[in-house]
Order: sequence, then C-alpha cells, then structure tokens
Amino acid sequence: MQYHLNGFQSGDPSVAPEVAHGDNVDVLIVGCGPAGLTLAAQLAAFPEISTRITERKSGPLKIGQADGIACRSIEMFEAFGFAEKVLKEAYWVNEVAFWRPQPDGNGLHRADRIQDVEDDLSEMPHVILSQARVHDFYLEVMKNSARRLEPDYNRELQNLTRTDDPDYPVTATFHCLDTGSIEILKARYVVGCDGARSTVRKSLGHTLNGEAARQLWGVMDVLAVTDFPDIRLKCAIQSADHGSILIIPREGGYLVRMYIELDTLHEDERASDRAVTADMLIEKARDILAPYTLDVKEVAWWSAYEIGQRVCDGFDDVPDAERGVRAPRIFIAGDACHTHSPKAGQGMNVSMADAFNLGWKLAAVLRGQANPTLLHSYSQERQAKAKELIEFDRDMARLFSAKPKNAEEAAQFQSYFKKHGRYTAGVETRYDPSDITGDENHQALAKHLKVGMRFHSAPVIRLGDGKPMHLGHTIKADGRWRLFAFAGAEDFGQPDGQIAQLCQYLSTNPDSPIKRFTAQGHDVDSLIDFRAIFQQAHQDMRIDTLPDLLLPRKGRYGLIDYEKVYCPDVKVGPDIFDHRGIDRTKGAVVIIRPDQFIAAVLPLGHFDRLAGFFNNIMIQQ
Amino acid sequence: MQYHLNGFQSGDPSVAPEVAHGDNVDVLIVGCGPAGLTLAAQLAAFPEISTRITERKSGPLKIGQADGIACRSIEMFEAFGFAEKVLKEAYWVNEVAFWRPQPDGNGLHRADRIQDVEDDLSEMPHVILSQARVHDFYLEVMKNSARRLEPDYNRELQNLTRTDDPDYPVTATFHCLDTGSIEILKARYVVGCDGARSTVRKSLGHTLNGEAARQLWGVMDVLAVTDFPDIRLKCAIQSADHGSILIIPREGGYLVRMYIELDTLHEDERASDRAVTADMLIEKARDILAPYTLDVKEVAWWSAYEIGQRVCDGFDDVPDAERGVRAPRIFIAGDACHTHSPKAGQGMNVSMADAFNLGWKLAAVLRGQANPTLLHSYSQERQAKAKELIEFDRDMARLFSAKPKNAEEAAQFQSYFKKHGRYTAGVETRYDPSDITGDENHQALAKHLKVGMRFHSAPVIRLGDGKPMHLGHTIKADGRWRLFAFAGAEDFGQPDGQIAQLCQYLSTNPDSPIKRFTAQGHDVDSLIDFRAIFQQAHQDMRIDTLPDLLLPRKGRYGLIDYEKVYCPDVKVGPDIFDHRGIDRTKGAVVIIRPDQFIAAVLPLGHFDRLAGFFNNIMIQQ
Repeated sequence: MQYHLNGFQSGDPSVAPEVAHGDNVDVLIVGCGPAGLTLAAQLAAFPEISTRITERKSGPLKIGQADGIACRSIEMFEAFGFAEKVLKEAYWVNEVAFWRPQPDGNGLHRADRIQDVEDDLSEMPHVILSQARVHDFYLEVMKNSARRLEPDYNRELQNLTRTDDPDYPVTATFHCLDTGSIEILKARYVVGCDGARSTVRKSLGHTLNGEAARQLWGVMDVLAVTDFPDIRLKCAIQSADHGSILIIPREGGYLVRMYIELDTLHEDERASDRAVTADMLIEKARDILAPYTLDVKEVAWWSAYEIGQRVCDGFDDVPDAERGVRAPRIFIAGDACHTHSPKAGQGMNVSMADAFNLGWKLAAVLRGQANPTLLHSYSQERQAKAKELIEFDRDMARLFSAKPKNAEEAAQFQSYFKKHGRYTAGVETRYDPSDITGDENHQALAKHLKVGMRFHSAPVIRLGDGKPMHLGHTIKADGRWRLFAFAGAEDFGQPDGQIAQLCQYLSTNPDSPIKRFTAQGHDVDSLIDFRAIFQQAHQDMRIDTLPDLLLPRKGRYGLIDYEKVYCPDVKVGPDIFDHRGIDRTKGAVVIIRPDQFIAAVLPLGHFDRLAGFFNNIMIQQ
Repeated sequence: MQYHLNGFQSGDPSVAPEVAHGDNVDVLIVGCGPAGLTLAAQLAAFPEISTRITERKSGPLKIGQADGIACRSIEMFEAFGFAEKVLKEAYWVNEVAFWRPQPDGNGLHRADRIQDVEDDLSEMPHVILSQARVHDFYLEVMKNSARRLEPDYNRELQNLTRTDDPDYPVTATFHCLDTGSIEILKARYVVGCDGARSTVRKSLGHTLNGEAARQLWGVMDVLAVTDFPDIRLKCAIQSADHGSILIIPREGGYLVRMYIELDTLHEDERASDRAVTADMLIEKARDILAPYTLDVKEVAWWSAYEIGQRVCDGFDDVPDAERGVRAPRIFIAGDACHTHSPKAGQGMNVSMADAFNLGWKLAAVLRGQANPTLLHSYSQERQAKAKELIEFDRDMARLFSAKPKNAEEAAQFQSYFKKHGRYTAGVETRYDPSDITGDENHQALAKHLKVGMRFHSAPVIRLGDGKPMHLGHTIKADGRWRLFAFAGAEDFGQPDGQIAQLCQYLSTNPDSPIKRFTAQGHDVDSLIDFRAIFQQAHQDMRIDTLPDLLLPRKGRYGLIDYEKVYCPDVKVGPDIFDHRGIDRTKGAVVIIRPDQFIAAVLPLGHFDRLAGFFNNIMIQQ
C-alpha cells in the first residue's frame, strides 16, 4: 500500500479524504448485487465521478445464495483491496472427491480425489463464502471512498427514458418503497444490474433467449452430523439409483451446502409446482448418501429451482446497425444478461467480471481519457463470454444430471470436471482482438502472458525495499493502464540498455502515450503506470543508475516513488521469466488494461507500435 | 475461522453476540497503550469477565511514537485475528544495510547488506507500522467482543487503595478530566499500563531503577527527497565525523524515520535543556548522510530524548516475603515496568508481551480454572525478561553510540546487529522452569520446540479439508491450553496406536486433565484443545477410523469439529517433523500455554506426567 504521498495523514489509509457530493449523476447503477457493487466500487475509486446505486430491497443482503468464488474473482478482490478478508473467512476448496456406486452395487466409494485448482493456475485459491459477505466488503470499499458512496435502498425502478439532454440523456423514475414517493434521476449513463427480471433490460426491449430446462434441483445449507467421511471436501456423488448430489462445504467449519438432483419436470411445469420442502431435500440427500447417515440439525437456507440457460440478445442500448453512429448510454450486466445453473459456481463470478469490464471503460470516458466509442467494447467482449458460459453450463448440467450407465460414463463426468477446472477458476476468459486487445504477433516474447487473457501474476522482489511480493498485486482497481517492461538478460537499466531507451522515449518523445495522454499537472504514472522487471538478483542491482521514469517524482512534494522496479525472486526456484515464458534475450513490453487483461505483448524497441495502440483509444490532453 | 457451531448467523463472524454488562469490575486496566490494549483484547475474549480500561487522554492515539513490530508480535496478532491487517499496511523490514565511511575518508559506502530476519525464524516478517494503527486493531477486537469493550477516556487515576472487601479489594479513584467529577471503581484486579510515570506503580511504592544515560538522540518521521540509494531499506549509517543515524523506512512507501545521534549530555542535563529543534535534526542528518543530499519536505513528527535503561523492582503488589501467603491483586505492565532506548524496536513489543503473559492467567483465575497462585508467575517471568531487555539495550545503545575508530570496530557493531536478530525478532524469550513451564528431560523428542519458548509454527495440511496452513495459527488468544500430539511413523490413528491410546486416556480416564478440569457442560476442547499431527500424506489418511476425540462433537447440536487432525505438507520439501526436530519414531506430546509458549515436551505414553503437569495448576471442576 502506498500512502502519505501528499503529506502525513493519521488513521486508516484505506479511507480516502472526503470530497463534496454533487447533484448530477454520472452513472446510475440499478441493483445492489455482485455486478452492481463491483461497478460501484470501481467507480468510487474516482472522486470526480458521481455515482448513485439503487436497490429495491430495504437494506444489505443478509443471506446470500451464491457462494462459489473463483480464483480469478479473488485476484480482482486483491485489486479492490479486500482479498485478504475473503481468504480469512472463506472455506478453501482445495480438493474435489468423486464418489460412485461400489462396483458390487452396495453403497458408495470414493473413485477419485483431485486437487481442485491446478498448481500455478492462480496465486489465489478457489473459495466458498456467502455472497452477503462479499457484498459487505464491497460496501466498505464504497463507504471509504472519497464520495462515501452508499446504496439508496427501497428504490424500485419504474421506467427509464432517453431524452435529448446532451449531458444527462437518461431519466430514471423510481418508486420509493419506504415513503411511497416518486424520485426522478437524470444520469449520463445507466447500468442495469437488476437481475434476471431486469427492468432496465425490459426498458431496452431486450429479452433473455434460451431453453427452459426441465431438470429440477434442490439446494440447502445445513448444519448436520454425518459419518460420510468427505463432508468437508467438495464432492460430486453419483448414487446407483437415487441420482446425484454435489457437496460444497461452507465457511466456518460446520455449514455444508448440498445441491440435490430432483425430478425431471413435465412440459410447462415449474419448480414451484412441485411444492418441494426442506424435508423432501433432506430425505433425498439421505437416499443418495446411503449407507452413510445424515442427521440434519438446522437448515440455514434452502431452495428448489430448474436449470435454465439463457442469454440476452443485447448488452446495451445500441443496435448493431448504429454502432458506428452513437455510443451506448445504457447497459445491463450480471444476471440481467445471462442466467444459468449454479452448478459450476459461476453466477456471482461472471456478474462481477461483467462489471469489472465495464467499470474502467465508463471511468475512462467520464474522465475524458478515452473516446466514448470505447464503450462498445463492453457488449462486444462480455456478450461473447456470456454465450461461452451458457454453452459450458449446458454441457455441465447435462453431464451432471445424466445417470451414469457404467463406470465409463461416470469417469467421463469426472474427466470433464477436471478439464474445466481452468474455466471454472475464471482464468480462461480470452477477449478477441479489438482496439483494446492487440494481436498475437509477438506472443512468443511472453509465451504464458496471453494477449486477451488476464495478467497472470508471479512472485518478484521489489528492488527498493527487497520485499517479496506478487507482481500482479501492483495492479489495483484504479483505472490505470500498466506497462510492464521485462528486461533482456544484459540489461540492468544502464543508459544504453533497452529499458533506459524505452524510458527515454516514454519520458520525452512527443509521440509517447505518457506525454500525449497524461493530463496536465497529474503524476507521470496517473494514466499509464510504467514498471520494469530485471533479470538480476535484487542485491546485484543499483538503484542510483536507473532512469528517472523508474524513480518518478510524484505528488505535491515531488517525492520519489521507489516501487517501480522488480527483480526475480531467486530463492523460490524458477523465476517470473521462467514461469511466464518471457524471452530472456529480448525481453518484452506487456500492456495491461485497467481490468488486468493483457492488451498487447510487444518487443521492447517497438515504440511506434506502443504509441499506436494508445492512439486508437485515448484522447490527447 | 470456525463459526456457525451453534446455528447459522449472518453477518461478520468476528463480531461476537452481545451479552449484558454488569456493574462489577473484574479487571480494571489503567492506560490505553500497547500493554493495556493487549490485555483488554485478551480479557474481552471471555464474555463472563467484566473489564474496564481507562485512559487519561481524550481519545484514541492518532500519531504513535513506537513503530517497530517484531515477528513474535505479529504471531501474537495472528492469535488475536488481525495479523493480516498489519501485514497489509506495514513496511516490511526485509533487509538491513550497513553504511560506513569510505576507506579513503570521502563519503560513505555500503559495507554490507543482510537479510533482516533469518529464514524460518518465524512465519511472520518484521514490520514497521504506526503504534496508532496497532491500537486501532486492538480497539476493533475489543469492540467486536461480547461485551463491546471500549476505553473510558479522560480518566486520570488519582489513587489506588486496598480494602478488606473479599471480592473487590481494590478501589481506584479517577478524576474525570472532561466533566471534572470524581469516579470511584472497585475491582477484583487492577493492572497499571500507565507508562513510565505510572501512578499505579507509585501507589505500590515501586520505583524504576537504573542509570540515567547521557546520550542525546533525536528522532523524526519525514517526507523527503534524497539521492541516498538505500532510503527504502533499514540502514545503520556511521559517518566518519558526524556520528550515526538509523534509517527506518515507514509504511506507505514515502515516510522515513531517522534516529539521529546528537551530543553527550553533561551531568544533570536533560534532553529538554538542549532546545533541540526539527531543523537541528535535519541539519545533523544532512551532515551524516553527506555527500548524499536530503531535502526534507515535511516533518510528520519529531522528538529528542536521552537513552535511559531502567527496570522496576516489583511487577505486582506482593513482596517476595509474602509470596507464599497471598496472591497479587495489582500489577504493572509495559513502560510502567521498564524503560529503554527505542533503537532495537523493542518498546511496544515487550509491553504487549507483558500483557499477553498476564492476560490468560487473570482469565484462568477469574473463570475458576486455575488457582490464584498462578498469578505470581507473571512477575516471576516478566521481571526476568525486563532485566534481559535492559541489558541488551544497554549493550546495543553503547555500541551504537560508540565512534568506530576503525573498520574492525565498525564490523563489530555489524556482527552484533546480526547476532541479535533473533532477540529483536522477539523469539528468543525463554521462561525458566516453574509450575507452568516444565523441564527439558524430553526435549530430544522435539528438538526445536524448546520448552519455555514460544511454539514455533510450521506448515501443515488440515486433514478434513486438505487446506495448507500453519499449525501455529490454530492457537488463538482464547485462553485455551493446547495439546499437540505428534504421531510416530507407524501411527495413523489405528486403535492400538499411541495416538488412539492417548485419546482413550484423555477421554475416559478419571485422572485425565480433560476429564478433571473441563467445566461441566462445556465442549470437550474448551479448556484443553487436543490436536494430532500424523506423518502420512493427508491423501493416505482415513478420517473414519480416527478416535472420537479427534472428531469431537461440539456445541448445542453436537456437530463434529473436523479441524483437529493435521498432516505434513509434502509439497514444500522438509515437513513439520523435520523443521521442528520431532522424533519420527517415538513422536511427542507438546503442551502449549494459552500465550503460545511451550510448557512441556513429553513422550506420547507418559500419561502421568501429563496429568501431573495440569494438576499443579488447575482446579478440579
């Protein structure tokens, strides 16, 4: 954490100095779910942006339905500054056990037990924690922000209209459920994070398309006593005659979630028609787990639902035919865009990823850094991901519900489960080439930092203070782009080296994106945060001969920022160059978007390509 | 974290359900410094104990003077549940650089650069963080406790008297500085954590003894620009002609603390007589650092002081002659007991260690678990440590202030610094044999888990859920004793194995300390928390054949606690048995005190020795 830059301040450094509130709303967020809160927390990072977030309910969520948090989401939480809180409270999914009928038909046996997340897939684990707690952490980030952002509860959106107002062209009418009054808000942008029955989506005339699934499932969170030995492991259990159950141990060491396969629904039948009760779920779970016993002491929460995979035909208010003419003003994100089964634990995660994708783009446009056309990329990138999710979920649900006729089929499920570990970890997301995602022409310079995928962190040592840390954790949710320059083997920052030459270009050349696009009077790293990673052990590096751009003067005092230079962690075996396949001879520059996705991998000397990339997006200051 | 044992509860699990407050004060703590707050946070863990903590100042500390936090203190913070907050905000002291005059006399050169904390000295780093933030974290723990404990500010202690009241024999009279009124409190116990000028100490007739030192030092926290390359490393700099400076980079990446050697004081002269100013400190720092420049932009805090090493002649209200007759009722802790130079960064750490030593003892007596004679051990243990500290500090200060006449003498200082890394890390504390610290007869069974020293953690895998974690982090500041049984190589919990036999003894034998001393109706692990560590990889262990005591039924529902059994982490090389020198053939039982100190190492089969140990301390229930 860096603080005290503009003078010493006592107190909690995560609480920003408060700024005055304005009346004008830059972004109106409808809905306080994972998507809405991620977006609100992101926008709250910018004191100059005025955000409102509304919620139909009367207060914060107390009991959450979603609970699976993918590795990728925790990487994002780290960027928001609360990963450690999640890691502390959560259940960690370290392994998955697969149980199947004994070959002789008598009861169950553990057929396999595998690591849930493969080694070095992420520095973060896969965890389980109530969605309500994730909400709490986001709310805290918002509350600590310069505008002390808090949701407006008891607000039911009635309608949304576009007007001719050039600045605040969207008008939202709310019914205040507590007072009965009507509130009208005008906003520059509106984002509907208002769930599967989204009013914002309806106002755009979009619909969720897909098949209504017929498989009925039950889910319950229980405190129970059992002699089933793997009750504290994630387990996929397929019984011989009673269907399947998925066991997800939960936070706190005692609570367990069970997803239980129920019947296939008839045509036009709904989950609610079956009058499912908690007792029915318990009985079914007992049947599946037999001969193991299950003595349920308390049902903390339960529900019954049918699996449906549906995705929206549009994620914003611009029809494809008008893409070239106008930029979007209204968006939808999260469950408003896609619904799917909870089986793969993707619900909360994909919704948060939607919002994280949109947040920095809205901020860049509102702060005058980027052209509003940037906003088209939200729909382009996230709609494609939603379709992938639906496909994945359909396969997964089908396999999960299928009765394994033999060991071979059961093994099929198991292998599918393993194969898709990367997908469910959230690290397989790859955006297609666009203005903000470059080509793969120079991918060979950093083989495992894939263009279009999230920056995969690795351990390093910070030169200034010798601290062992994760390079990826320097990427905060602060709207900044990152330029990570990985040095060639002979380069230790000397004046004739490639790193120094790149610094020279970035600091002085009029075509340099830092020179062109950084706002007047702002710190040199306020738009593009340049950092360098050398191959020498940190004890062998000299600080005093480094280029100025790697020791930038910042803030009102012009203090030196000593956190721009990193070295390999030679104590722990293979280093970041090995782990991420970086060309040790040539080095590489990696451009990273504010949402941690890799925009480009370029040779160190290709200044024009570097400049060209930012020229496509940014507005000259 | 374990929670939801007695039913599902939404919200922050670190906030305990609130209980009603009583009027009677079990423990009155005078003073809200590190010692007072550590003690208050410890006592707050017990809903049945009524604690009051008073402070002369009008509110929480905003700017702290102490800043060094030893590895051992962070281990303790982990037990209180806020280590991760400290680690996140703090500066990490990873290395120390030693600068000396160039051999040719022209300026300075870096003579050496070493790791600050040697490998595997602790799983925690040595860090720097404002004392005010440490206070904040303690205050949060207190506020979240069942009694929602908060300090009473504006209370100046006027006097303390002993009465004949058998229950509440100590009467404290406070002057309320905000209202001008007088408040009288009666308490069972009083602990003076009221600093070097302690009123509690004076009321006991104790004095601080030692020599007044003549060396004047200045300290300042600054935001500055310098070309001195190691400004973000802890540095000990000895100049040729201008004395010494100690540089301690601080949290947030920009702030730096400098301890600057000033003049030797004349007889009877005080620091205040010299009219030191911040500008004088800056000038002196410039002289020492030359030819490097120092441009101070802001002085966040500064002070001038003389080094004095003093220790109190008594830590409680019982004269040695009366030790056999009565147990203490009034104690002093922290700066009230010892004062010394800040050079070794021990101030805050030793004070917190005092309170952590006392806290569990007071709680055990108040909760009826232990005989009040236990309270003698506070003075016995901590007075010895205070004397060691004073000796250490005297050597350190002398060496630091000595002008190195040659390279050899300078190197001497350096080697002393290295050698005492363990001491300053706080992990060298070793209590002498007593009722609560056994002998070394069986030390060979666990060579590196030294009797009388703190339990040194190591990585393990939790069997129930396959979680990689630190065994030491299961020891929370909850007043419980721990029995860690390390299994022999052939023991995997089978009924005829030593672990199963120990479980059998502990669960059923009338002499078992768990049977004798655990209160009626309380969980089986509420007094003594028994855990076992096996040598097999966790995938090779079976849960369903383990003894019941390792899968205890707890709480109102009789839920099973799955967090009692651990296995080696085979992925990371040498395992806990290797690291801690545990006899792989014979195994060992380690008894750990509630303050994480090792009370005894015993053979697995020596039930009588085990019982005997607890019989000396505990009260039969």
